[in-house]
Amino acid sequence: MINITIIGMGLIGTSLGMALRSAPASESALGAVHITGYDPDSNATSTARGRLAIDRIARSLPEAIQGAQIIVIATPVQAIQAIFTQFAPLLPPGTIVTDTASTKAQVCAWAAALLPPTVDFVGGHPMAGKEQSGPTAADPDLFRGAIYCLTPAANARPQAVAACETLAITAGARPYYIDPEEHDAYVAGISHLPLLLATALVEVTSNGPGWAEMARLAATGFRDVSRLASGDPTMRRDICITNRVALTRWIDDTISLLADIRTALEQGDAAWLHDLFQRTKQARDAWLEQQPHLRPGEEPLDPMQYVERRSLFGFGKPRREKE
Amino acid sequence: MINITIIGMGLIGTSLGMALRSAPASESALGAVHITGYDPDSNATSTARGRLAIDRIARSLPEAIQGAQIIVIATPVQAIQAIFTQFAPLLPPGTIVTDTASTKAQVCAWAAALLPPTVDFVGGHPMAGKEQSGPTAADPDLFRGAIYCLTPAANARPQAVAACETLAITAGARPYYIDPEEHDAYVAGISHLPLLLATALVEVTSNGPGWAEMARLAATGFRDVSRLASGDPTMRRDICITNRVALTRWIDDTISLLADIRTALEQGDAAWLHDLFQRTKQARDAWLEQQPHLRPGEEPLDPMQYVERRSLFGFGKPRREKE
Repeated sequence: MINITIIGMGLIGTSLGMALRSAPASESALGAVHITGYDPDSNATSTARGRLAIDRIARSLPEAIQGAQIIVIATPVQAIQAIFTQFAPLLPPGTIVTDTASTKAQVCAWAAALLPPTVDFVGGHPMAGKEQSGPTAADPDLFRGAIYCLTPAANARPQAVAACETLAITAGARPYYIDPEEHDAYVAGISHLPLLLATALVEVTSNGPGWAEMARLAATGFRDVSRLASGDPTMRRDICITNRVALTRWIDDTISLLADIRTALEQGDAAWLHDLFQRTKQARDAWLEQQPHLRPGEEPLDPMQYVERRSLFGFGKPRREKE
Repeated sequence: MINITIIGMGLIGTSLGMALRSAPASESALGAVHITGYDPDSNATSTARGRLAIDRIARSLPEAIQGAQIIVIATPVQAIQAIFTQFAPLLPPGTIVTDTASTKAQVCAWAAALLPPTVDFVGGHPMAGKEQSGPTAADPDLFRGAIYCLTPAANARPQAVAACETLAITAGARPYYIDPEEHDAYVAGISHLPLLLATALVEVTSNGPGWAEMARLAATGFRDVSRLASGDPTMRRDICITNRVALTRWIDDTISLLADIRTALEQGDAAWLHDLFQRTKQARDAWLEQQPHLRPGEEPLDPMQYVERRSLFGFGKPRREKE
């Protein structure tokens, strides 16, 4: 039996609890789990409990981390610093701490500065989400087939890294080790820039004088490109603030390209535009072909092949003798 | 029986043929139809015929328009000028001509300049599509619940307008009358700007040095915001070229906003960013709530209520006596 505490009962924290609790103990890579949930909003923990995401509700941060072998912090990025500060003195040696935040360099720096060296920190970022937020939007299949980035601290013990990897696998995701700075630079382009472009689309169109009429004409193209604009504002703000250097580079590239497109339009340069559209179609189609597991539910991992992993981190007993 | 000719057996032309032919003659607003298809690519017409989108394949433009009461031009925008020029001398008085192009002012100007005054032109633009192109991607439900913009020429007879409106209804769409210039300004914001932003996202990220690694991490957010980049390059080029004035205005607004976001990032202005994200979330969520029929298949129109419309344009005999 592993005691896991999830701090933050939003979309990700609640979905993770649901995914871990719904994995059959005898077959899952993690074995039997007991999950404690904490959120300053007691409605969120109640909802998460009602959705079977957690076994136990904690009423405070100190209560939440009591007895926890793995602590998952699933709050907006900016809240993590304060949480580290608050629970650092309370953590017993050997506690494994991970998170689910969308940027990793800042979180890893906070972990190095604030957590005691006797604690193992393994940064985590499941590349999954949806525009709805909160525990009511949670989905146990949210992580199925998704890439789950892991950024272990230099001093994290191998068994702590294995435990976090196994947690990702049990949730249905595919672990992917990456350097925190590299992670942030990459996701700035493929995750945070899309978020800004979706936001920009909604901001400029909805402020236009014809918006009431335009809104009636907007169809599936607008819906899809704008989808990320419906995401949680605090989460989006924190992502931008903690990843501003990488994001600024992508914004510059985008502004420069939009200016080039504007010039081509003014000059009626149809050939240049056709090349651009041809090139981007090829790049996007090639990407799509390489990503067969993009949609939740497609080709799940077989957790049985990971059952032997439990010995790596030594939690719990294999339950196969029960069968 | 109405003879309809569709010129251009791409996604839209083929889908329209399938939608019109699959509507039961006794119940549809248009009555029985006989559809002729033409495309310079004979593979496209064969595929369209195989998919039951057309009754007859025409081998040339003159053959295609012979006996047609309604001609639907479903080619890329830029091809329409040449088609008007070529078949203008061949059209018998009273022929109804419509199109499906994404921009309307230019097409309406070509119609006024090139078509004989004895022909009725009613511009059309079904607000539906998908990133795949060609007849193999066609779908008889593509237009179901979609807004179908109509821009009748000033001299178009009322029965011609009624016929095009009824064609849109029979395809499952909702007719929406609009001025061509107004149409172009609006769709520049809600349709063509999204297309450019999707293109820009793919262009800047796929040209980045880390693209091979980044591509592995890109998930559903990237997939959705970039979706329109997989659209047909010629169609996208033509849209831009024929709608450049309106599009340039939206590009300027977007560049200006991205520059503001960049400044806020540099200054760490979390409050400004939060306001932006809050405001756009509200605008997008409000838009989504007002658009209950966005997805194909949701709440189809009842074509029976439009059967009496046939008298408006006087084609064919009602078939209800057969029942």
